[in-house]
Amino acid sequence: MSKTSKHADTGRKLESMAQAVVKYARAKEDPGFDIPTRALSNAKFDEKRAIITMGDAVQRRNFFNLGQAKKFMQTMLVASGCKDLADQGKSTSIRDMYYHTKHTIEGTRENTFDDQSESDPIIEDLEVAIESLREELGLFAENRGAMVGNMVIIDNGDTIDLTHMGSGGWAIPSIVEADVIQFRKCRADYILLIEKGAVWNRFNQDRFWEKANCLIMHGQGQPPRGVRRLLHRMHHELKLPVYVLTDNDPWGYYIYSVVKQGSINLAFESARMAIPKARFVGMSSFDVERFGINRAVTIAMKDEDTRRAKEIMAYPWFANKKDWQKEIAHMLKTGVKLELEALSSKDFSFITETYLPEKMKKKQWLD
Amino acid sequence: MSKTSKHADTGRKLESMAQAVVKYARAKEDPGFDIPTRALSNAKFDEKRAIITMGDAVQRRNFFNLGQAKKFMQTMLVASGCKDLADQGKSTSIRDMYYHTKHTIEGTRENTFDDQSESDPIIEDLEVAIESLREELGLFAENRGAMVGNMVIIDNGDTIDLTHMGSGGWAIPSIVEADVIQFRKCRADYILLIEKGAVWNRFNQDRFWEKANCLIMHGQGQPPRGVRRLLHRMHHELKLPVYVLTDNDPWGYYIYSVVKQGSINLAFESARMAIPKARFVGMSSFDVERFGINRAVTIAMKDEDTRRAKEIMAYPWFANKKDWQKEIAHMLKTGVKLELEALSSKDFSFITETYLPEKMKKKQWLD
Repeated sequence: MSKTSKHADTGRKLESMAQAVVKYARAKEDPGFDIPTRALSNAKFDEKRAIITMGDAVQRRNFFNLGQAKKFMQTMLVASGCKDLADQGKSTSIRDMYYHTKHTIEGTRENTFDDQSESDPIIEDLEVAIESLREELGLFAENRGAMVGNMVIIDNGDTIDLTHMGSGGWAIPSIVEADVIQFRKCRADYILLIEKGAVWNRFNQDRFWEKANCLIMHGQGQPPRGVRRLLHRMHHELKLPVYVLTDNDPWGYYIYSVVKQGSINLAFESARMAIPKARFVGMSSFDVERFGINRAVTIAMKDEDTRRAKEIMAYPWFANKKDWQKEIAHMLKTGVKLELEALSSKDFSFITETYLPEKMKKKQWLD
Repeated sequence: MSKTSKHADTGRKLESMAQAVVKYARAKEDPGFDIPTRALSNAKFDEKRAIITMGDAVQRRNFFNLGQAKKFMQTMLVASGCKDLADQGKSTSIRDMYYHTKHTIEGTRENTFDDQSESDPIIEDLEVAIESLREELGLFAENRGAMVGNMVIIDNGDTIDLTHMGSGGWAIPSIVEADVIQFRKCRADYILLIEKGAVWNRFNQDRFWEKANCLIMHGQGQPPRGVRRLLHRMHHELKLPVYVLTDNDPWGYYIYSVVKQGSINLAFESARMAIPKARFVGMSSFDVERFGINRAVTIAMKDEDTRRAKEIMAYPWFANKKDWQKEIAHMLKTGVKLELEALSSKDFSFITETYLPEKMKKKQWLD
């Protein structure tokens, strides 16, 4: 990857943040900056846009304040590290950034950071403070997830035909912004996000993407930011509908919820991540009857599941939805969960040959 | 994937196992079969071949034995499920197999399996009993790991050029046997297995594979069987040396140990997985001095680390190696661990531009 306008933009934003601090210092005033508050108290559900957004509350971070001085220093260090990255036109992992900014402060035994759990939130602070997503700052997490289907993409200059990716598929990188990933020749009709890699394998092996003319993706559980951002870009730039296929359990509901509305923790990125029109084709607790599934393959809910199901039921974005209320109430009533793999009790390819085609045909999804 | 000779072979092996049971039943004898013992007591280090192998001890599993009847039934069920797979020319996940073979026994409240932790060991039993690796039985786990470099492969009929895989790379599937993956045009000089995906990203971004003319792989931590099996095939079929780059901690040592000698738990697959000639270019506890690394980025060892380090030091395959004894003794003496990412404290690309090239040039590896 070489230095692009993205790197220059990010560099400028970081510089102007630093210049404000310098200005305070020169004026012999207490240097500081505002960090928008990332907490439940400052997250709200925007009914009109149907996404979780961040409010206007900010916290001032000052240098001459015993409680804030360390965080002030840490924020400056991370900002400076990100400036180094932008100058070199590189990206790096959030763990690398932790190490890059870690050192013992001269003449003391005090470390700038003792643990990555200190630097990760600072990175999120910086994201909101200068309105650059972590991906724009050039910071990545582990790669997770894969995709195949009727589309050609350019990944870092390489042309990749996603119909010829064999059994493994194209590994989705952690940073999928437009300067790295571009879309070419997309002939697919929709995107299917599958919760689990092993189930995705079944869909790939049975060439479901060819028969149904779709793109199949997975994110190995809760999709990482790379997968969510790629979904968002494809949904908006290519006008592709998104369908989410998960287990029938509160965790599956939550995966869908985050794809659709965003998360409270990362409310500031909803506008670039959330897909309010995503549909849930995941397993429903009504499927046991609908598809005549052997009850031996259901799993009894634990107390934790019941608690989570009730919490999700009360989320503002589920509260007004009759179908969702019915769905979760039925799960609570039957007291059992159901995994995608449970369909293998009927036949290994039941999920690709019968289950999903029937659901799609009958429009048996939840909105 | 379509039905191949592999499926036919596996089908035949499963059938002959079943026929032996039928023969006992017809002769009104107690049906049973032998399962080689998978335990420390039956694993040994083969000095000559330098791999961990399984001994000759077997356990008889009989139907008319209260303590064995359930396991007998479970083994038959899994064998029958694998026969279904072979007949259909498919592969499926070990979780699917659990569900495929799970049901409530008629007229009782007893399930054939209550949990996947019951079916997974039965699969391993079957692997050793009929001498077919899980991959040959058509059973896969989650995909994990990626690869790029100067080689063209065929993956399930698709030709994939690993020099044009963008930032994500080719996702390594869980099953990489010769009927799925074939090698074409390999011009690389060696294979570098990197412990972590995030570090692999750095190597890919800096196009290390191009400059050093190698293949770079990662397995997201302890490499899964797919990655190990692929390494083994490339090492033997393409005569490529294997270098392993891990953190400097007992976990990193152990990753190397499993790649090189195999594991006790899966001793029966060592001959098809272990690479006795693999070399360790992972971080050494001498690197702090060698490369002048800031001590603030080292991590204090915990009691658990010390215990594991001592255990590994005593493994028969490390016990006679002077360099390894020195290495581990030095770690114990300094009492600190070191992660690959710690090199970012010097510079983001220090690891690809200075650290590894220098180690390779000076042959600073452990054997």
